Amino acid sequence: MSRKPAPDAGRAAAAVADDPLVVFTPSGRRGNFRRGTNLLQAARELGVDLDSVCGGRGICTRCQCTIGEGEYAKHGISSSNDHLTPFTEPELRQQKSGQLKPGRRLSCQVRIGGDLVVDVPPESQVHKQVVRKRAEARAVKLDPVVHLHYVEVTPPDMHEPAAHLRRLKQALKEQWNIDAETADIPLLQKLNKTLEEGEYKVTVFLREGKRILDVRPGFYDKLYGMAVDVGSTTIAAHLCDLQTGEVVASAGRMNPQIRFGEDLMSRVSYVMMNPGGDQEMTAAVREALNELALETAKEAGINPLDIMEVTIAGNPIMHHLVLGIDPTPLGFAPFALSTDESTELWASEIDLHLNPGTRVYVLPCIAGHVGADAAGVVLSEMPYHADDMTLIVDVGTNAEIILGNKDRLLAASSPTGPAFEGAQVSSGQRAAPGATERVRIAPETLEPRFKVIGDETWSNDPDFASTPTGICGSGIIEVLAEMYLAGLLTTDGVIDGAMAERTPRLIQQDRTYAYVIHEGNPTITVTQNDIRQIQLAKGALYAGARLLMDHMGIETVDRVTLAGAFGSHIDTKYAMILGMIPDCDLGKVGSAGNAAGTGARIALLNKDARRELEEVVRDIEKIETAVEAKFQEHFVEAMAIPHKTAPYPNLSKAVTLPEPKFAATDEESPRRRRRRKAG
Amino acid sequence: MSRKPAPDAGRAAAAVADDPLVVFTPSGRRGNFRRGTNLLQAARELGVDLDSVCGGRGICTRCQCTIGEGEYAKHGISSSNDHLTPFTEPELRQQKSGQLKPGRRLSCQVRIGGDLVVDVPPESQVHKQVVRKRAEARAVKLDPVVHLHYVEVTPPDMHEPAAHLRRLKQALKEQWNIDAETADIPLLQKLNKTLEEGEYKVTVFLREGKRILDVRPGFYDKLYGMAVDVGSTTIAAHLCDLQTGEVVASAGRMNPQIRFGEDLMSRVSYVMMNPGGDQEMTAAVREALNELALETAKEAGINPLDIMEVTIAGNPIMHHLVLGIDPTPLGFAPFALSTDESTELWASEIDLHLNPGTRVYVLPCIAGHVGADAAGVVLSEMPYHADDMTLIVDVGTNAEIILGNKDRLLAASSPTGPAFEGAQVSSGQRAAPGATERVRIAPETLEPRFKVIGDETWSNDPDFASTPTGICGSGIIEVLAEMYLAGLLTTDGVIDGAMAERTPRLIQQDRTYAYVIHEGNPTITVTQNDIRQIQLAKGALYAGARLLMDHMGIETVDRVTLAGAFGSHIDTKYAMILGMIPDCDLGKVGSAGNAAGTGARIALLNKDARRELEEVVRDIEKIETAVEAKFQEHFVEAMAIPHKTAPYPNLSKAVTLPEPKFAATDEESPRRRRRRKAG
Repeated sequence: MSRKPAPDAGRAAAAVADDPLVVFTPSGRRGNFRRGTNLLQAARELGVDLDSVCGGRGICTRCQCTIGEGEYAKHGISSSNDHLTPFTEPELRQQKSGQLKPGRRLSCQVRIGGDLVVDVPPESQVHKQVVRKRAEARAVKLDPVVHLHYVEVTPPDMHEPAAHLRRLKQALKEQWNIDAETADIPLLQKLNKTLEEGEYKVTVFLREGKRILDVRPGFYDKLYGMAVDVGSTTIAAHLCDLQTGEVVASAGRMNPQIRFGEDLMSRVSYVMMNPGGDQEMTAAVREALNELALETAKEAGINPLDIMEVTIAGNPIMHHLVLGIDPTPLGFAPFALSTDESTELWASEIDLHLNPGTRVYVLPCIAGHVGADAAGVVLSEMPYHADDMTLIVDVGTNAEIILGNKDRLLAASSPTGPAFEGAQVSSGQRAAPGATERVRIAPETLEPRFKVIGDETWSNDPDFASTPTGICGSGIIEVLAEMYLAGLLTTDGVIDGAMAERTPRLIQQDRTYAYVIHEGNPTITVTQNDIRQIQLAKGALYAGARLLMDHMGIETVDRVTLAGAFGSHIDTKYAMILGMIPDCDLGKVGSAGNAAGTGARIALLNKDARRELEEVVRDIEKIETAVEAKFQEHFVEAMAIPHKTAPYPNLSKAVTLPEPKFAATDEESPRRRRRRKAG
Repeated sequence: MSRKPAPDAGRAAAAVADDPLVVFTPSGRRGNFRRGTNLLQAARELGVDLDSVCGGRGICTRCQCTIGEGEYAKHGISSSNDHLTPFTEPELRQQKSGQLKPGRRLSCQVRIGGDLVVDVPPESQVHKQVVRKRAEARAVKLDPVVHLHYVEVTPPDMHEPAAHLRRLKQALKEQWNIDAETADIPLLQKLNKTLEEGEYKVTVFLREGKRILDVRPGFYDKLYGMAVDVGSTTIAAHLCDLQTGEVVASAGRMNPQIRFGEDLMSRVSYVMMNPGGDQEMTAAVREALNELALETAKEAGINPLDIMEVTIAGNPIMHHLVLGIDPTPLGFAPFALSTDESTELWASEIDLHLNPGTRVYVLPCIAGHVGADAAGVVLSEMPYHADDMTLIVDVGTNAEIILGNKDRLLAASSPTGPAFEGAQVSSGQRAAPGATERVRIAPETLEPRFKVIGDETWSNDPDFASTPTGICGSGIIEVLAEMYLAGLLTTDGVIDGAMAERTPRLIQQDRTYAYVIHEGNPTITVTQNDIRQIQLAKGALYAGARLLMDHMGIETVDRVTLAGAFGSHIDTKYAMILGMIPDCDLGKVGSAGNAAGTGARIALLNKDARRELEEVVRDIEKIETAVEAKFQEHFVEAMAIPHKTAPYPNLSKAVTLPEPKFAATDEESPRRRRRRKAG
């Protein structure tokens, strides 16, 4: 019998080199085991990542493997039919019910009869990789904080009348080598009944390998978690299967706090004007969380009591309101949070009516304006693993800005105001069906065409039948960039009235001009004031990024990631034309979607990611834009389109930029010129 | 300058042998310190047990010391007036207000100017000894789980906008070298306001040196705890000052569960007959705990929110009902507890409306019939420290029996039934005013005299004016013992009808006799059946003790302690005459009072006592009387008075025992004799 050396053989107790060799793939772990050794046991001895909830009783089917007969030769060992014990009764039953796939064996049922090559399929691994959709996003290793363990507990009798909890712990120790730590009152209250109901066979929900959260009668294998991003406008929840990592249901809803104020500052004002207003808002958002839990559970067809873990991300004010902390101090300098640490609590402590054992993990905040949502973004994008100098911006009423790589991370918040969200813009509206989201202007005719959310056709298509109701943030960005490219807008952001001679779309309003995108009810225009609002917003955003680049001592970034709803809708090219973000290879400018929510989901799926995030957050250098003189300087300069100082070599590769045309004071304004001509 | 060597001098950083020597008494710790060193700081460096809540700011007056000038010579060092800096402004203020006693200094205000002998009075020590009233009881070292720490927190500003919790922790670290661990939601919810109110000077309530339970504005030095023994009949609470160890208020009340059933088994029956009945009883007992907290707080004139820790002892059924666990399984073999571990929880988890940071420690149970009350007794009596082989019995409906010493401890429960509590006895009643509690029978006349609870005179005193309402446990014990000593009762517990010839107090009832203690309304008699009930009870008690002695392999014990209300009332000599307890030197038979409550109080005052108890309880060997054949054997034999087998050498020293008179089957019964005579 030819055979490669078995370096791990020593691990198999009492086995010798002549005993059968077992090779596990894909790990490559191998060892010699005595004939008759249980295959699951062998895998455990070798530290092979092979799942089991039932602890080797043929119930859970988590340990199913393929015996890779074809690969024997590759591993230099011989094959034989008698290398495996025959199918057991549990295997036949599981095969019949479809739980055990064809060609597979339950490793807990197989005894080693000779050399074996055993392939552990991904779904049989405890620490599965959860692959993410975006190509550049890192996969997440599934390793949730809660695990299930089926145990058979010794029933009490007069000779062994130890307390139920003690016998349960003993079973966990003997059958899983787990030292369970403590149990809480609700568990103790149900323990006796559950043990009786399951005839002393129960499944234990164990947190962090030690805390007993729940017990269920018999074998039970349902375990879920919910990740929530509490935004000022929208609350998004993902219900995840904690045993596969899959999102089994998602739901979003308006933050009910909107009735207390559209944006964060107006909600803080509400609290100041209405004593107890924070409690009203806390109750409202907690109720929404309850509704989302029920809604996603219903959608996925699961029992809400199986949601054993919840993770929450949110901006500092949402963070405080969810926890029931008065957010008023966050409305004023020095913007001191009550806590910036991650917070772990019972779901019941924030009135979530889930399992009494359900725990909530609230992501840490970075600073007074850079909250647990930004921490979620950091966890989602993991710039701390990157070689690339990465700029991440999450745009809302404030822009959270993260800059750095594996060596160093900086964070700041910049007061962009709500213009990017369609507020303080004459025809502005939130990104919702009917909102103009894409705009193109033909440079020759200066005629616009546009698309509205909910309609795939452009406005110049004969089939176009929508009535635009306004223009959302991404639409405003595009129209400004297109106006600039078409020469309608100067670098200084002034609508060039001289162009009114070429198009009736430019109309005079008092002393300025406006561009009409759509005539109708409502008429959608871009006014000089709208442009100023956007300039202020993009200037603040750029200045914040630039300030971090100063602190980092760099002139360019390698990668730009736009997070959040706005970041998903925006065409990154236009963001760059407008000078919202520093110049960067357009191939490395991307959108991360709801990265805060993704971060919450990662924290839900992988417990080590929490510790990693907590450490990273502690090390992030917080830059306070308000006290940095440089910020004002950058801000003023960043008002120009793209802007006056920074080179944009990548941008000029992508689009044809017009000649810079400064509407400076030494130039005659179109209005004055017309007056002079008229006069 | 003559001086003894200063062995600890090396501990004082940068000090040399020529620097002033400071000697602290009574610890004897000594060291050289540079001139100008703060005296409190010096004490800390030497590890002197010197209290401080304010951290050296002259606020708390806990660090006051006497500078022992007269003792300089004794320590071989010279004295001088300039060895101390003058009184500071805080000292003068505290002197004026009476907080700083005459002749004392605040060590935090004094700087070392020369050699010093400093006496730390007991009240300035952190780990004071709390002395107990009973001579044989060990003193308890005061070392509660919660401590107060005054800190001055850096206010946030734009350059240092760290979260409040982070700055609070930083202050604890810098000013107390404490690594605070976590804070809970209610604390976070109040943190901002409290910091503002205290102008960033706050007092922190810290549990186990790490968990922040509460913060109060400014300097605050009130800290209390409540120890409760939840008995089936009575709930007793002691409110303790956790900074002095003193009991500042005590209160007791009937367990309101009595309306669901007089004794434990009837309450278990109530639960079985009435679904949800356990929840009613849980609510009732928790409400009583709330009332006791408010009552004791009111009596002591303290704010109930300053009660930061509660400890609870109670029998297994009370233990379960307080925790909201269905006690039904405890009514039936195998009497399995849901948990026997100590339980730590928030006061709010058992509906105690105290401080949101208040924690509850429930003492561990020993076994299904030997509960957290018995654990409290163990902690109170500490047999695990004793050389003496100690027997401790706590008599109620069941007797909990502990036997052992520092080497080994055994525990059992014995089904005495309620006779000792006056139930199932014809004239029996609970120990309450009006109950006959002491009885003497003149051997010559066979006439009784008695005392009732609430009246200091004997019934044969001309001033005696009480009407006895019944007879309580201790009264029954005495009357039986006196009847035996007077020859009215045989060793077998039969009332000797032949004695009817000598006294009209013996009256015939059906086929047996009864002894009339008091004629009136009601007439108080001791019937043959009463005696049988007491024999059963005392037989069970003795048999349990004897079984443990068998397991221990001993024939005699060195010490007997009677715990509980019954144990307090009973005259131990009579307990021995009756054969309730094994023979023992009467000087070493004593009563421990409400030892379970004392145990709860010790657990409240000293955190290490909890760990000690948990370890001891784990190691106690549980003997299940119901499955031990020997128990029945002992039980039958122990029915005799005192009983048939065990020698009582100590007893015969104390009292004159009648000649044994066995009413065995080979003897003619008085009744039969009379019949024969009559026939």
